[in-house]
Amino acid sequence: MEIEFLGTGAGSPAKARNVTSIALKLLEEINEIWLFDVGEGTQHQILRTTIKPRKIARIFITHLHGDHIFGLPGFLSSRSFQGAEKLGQLVIYGPKGIQEYVQTSLRLSQSKLTYKIKYVEIDEEGLLFENSKFQVFAARLDHRIECFGFRIVERDYPGELQVDRLRAEKVPSGPLYGKLKAGEKVVLPDGRTLNGKDYLGQPKRGRIVTILGDTRQTPNVLALAQHANALVHESTFGKDESQLAFSYYHSTNIQAAKVAQKAQVGKLFLTHISARYVGLKSLQLEKDARTVFKQTTLANDFDTFFIPFSRK
Amino acid sequence: MEIEFLGTGAGSPAKARNVTSIALKLLEEINEIWLFDVGEGTQHQILRTTIKPRKIARIFITHLHGDHIFGLPGFLSSRSFQGAEKLGQLVIYGPKGIQEYVQTSLRLSQSKLTYKIKYVEIDEEGLLFENSKFQVFAARLDHRIECFGFRIVERDYPGELQVDRLRAEKVPSGPLYGKLKAGEKVVLPDGRTLNGKDYLGQPKRGRIVTILGDTRQTPNVLALAQHANALVHESTFGKDESQLAFSYYHSTNIQAAKVAQKAQVGKLFLTHISARYVGLKSLQLEKDARTVFKQTTLANDFDTFFIPFSRK
Ligand SMILES: [Zn+2]
Ligand SMILES: [Zn+2]
Repeated sequence: MEIEFLGTGAGSPAKARNVTSIALKLLEEINEIWLFDVGEGTQHQILRTTIKPRKIARIFITHLHGDHIFGLPGFLSSRSFQGAEKLGQLVIYGPKGIQEYVQTSLRLSQSKLTYKIKYVEIDEEGLLFENSKFQVFAARLDHRIECFGFRIVERDYPGELQVDRLRAEKVPSGPLYGKLKAGEKVVLPDGRTLNGKDYLGQPKRGRIVTILGDTRQTPNVLALAQHANALVHESTFGKDESQLAFSYYHSTNIQAAKVAQKAQVGKLFLTHISARYVGLKSLQLEKDARTVFKQTTLANDFDTFFIPFSRK
Repeated sequence: MEIEFLGTGAGSPAKARNVTSIALKLLEEINEIWLFDVGEGTQHQILRTTIKPRKIARIFITHLHGDHIFGLPGFLSSRSFQGAEKLGQLVIYGPKGIQEYVQTSLRLSQSKLTYKIKYVEIDEEGLLFENSKFQVFAARLDHRIECFGFRIVERDYPGELQVDRLRAEKVPSGPLYGKLKAGEKVVLPDGRTLNGKDYLGQPKRGRIVTILGDTRQTPNVLALAQHANALVHESTFGKDESQLAFSYYHSTNIQAAKVAQKAQVGKLFLTHISARYVGLKSLQLEKDARTVFKQTTLANDFDTFFIPFSRK
């Protein structure tokens, strides 16, 4: 599980930062990549990475502001031309209006896609998606326009089968190891009955990644971020600008760091960096946030981070 | 009058070529820049040029395919943030549907612009726009979707006032030179009557620039291109692919060169170059076209050309 920042800017593209898009790479886990927001030029950014558009199976849109969605029709169209392989359905999750936006753009441009799109317009907070490996929860944030944050929860990994113990107890290897691993009861040829559950190590906690849209501080921020291994939080303003941040429905770097601290997250990534913060000034944003929460990283375009498991 | 190619690719953005956009810079003439097509990422390309978005006063859209329009909402939004100066109205000319596309995108993204947009959906061929310096004509091309080509005609420059002759004839300098220059009749203090028209040199021919959208060969191509100082023609396919070009409603480099030759244009610029033609292969497109029409240039992103006056 890796997170790759495709665009870390705010509002308009700048030379150093494109507008928002984040790729959550779940290739090892489920052979899928998920995109969070698709600002204009996201497909151009993808060209400079190893990401294959056909692997992108789900797109989550936090809100409909232009710097978060104007790259969507172009990305969807270009994805059609990628390789001869049959492309599976792509699911787009987002606030009400995302379907009209995409469908109007594709209809008027007469773009015919080689794959199906399923639209899930979010009307309720809570569980938005689940499969055998992941759950995604959505909750409302406080932006000028309807805006969501997403909490991606990896299901726990079952404990490893304690093969050494089984060998010590002279349990013959073979297909029954698979049953034990699944936690089932097994009768051995010599009459002994073993319960798989007794031979499994500690289950490993799945990871949690929280990706927020643009937002003012609001209780849902903390709820979504609780104990996340990685929290992606906007940082449109600097430490002395909390008033400005409030008026524009955004957050400061310090507010983000305080959330990270309170929610006891593993790592905080700051993004949605205004073009006013370039070079040393953007480093200062990071430095100031670290005085509150040490594990803070200011994300730059194309930065990629592995999401580590919790230590304990 | 200069033409700057902001995107010279076809279909999807590629590393070397962005999707279509062309800037016609009329800064000396009328202090305006006109854009022809606005593919996704056009605003990103503009960031790497000296073009000021607020100078862009008119946008002409050839057709609604995504690689020609998906950069429009983002460009329009970002233009709002450019400087404190009051921005004049921007006019968008294009096929039916362009207004719905832009308005839907701006409405759903809640983009509030600081300037007015006027939409001119083209329903008739012929004169589309004129002011004291320029006329723009539109005519239908033959693409899979409704598509237009544009012929931009600079009005002729009046002849220069022949000051040397006036001095030789002892005509006292002063405000009456202005009247003579405007071709008016003037009575001198000594009673002589002069007709300005007799003291004007040859008028200078205005320039003609023809910018075509994607198209198969069709009679309007030649009509629009006739005697243009510069012709911008798509070249999606190479010399041995006229069948493919026909099936996909596009043209080859050789077809473009033949038009340039028949229409007796000054210069031919090839654009809309497929990503299949990179490096030497794209140079071959140019080389092959030059066997038919010598003054051919294959345009690359950011190439800028001055449009010269006709020689005679
Ligand atoms: Zn926003
Ligand atoms: Zn086209």
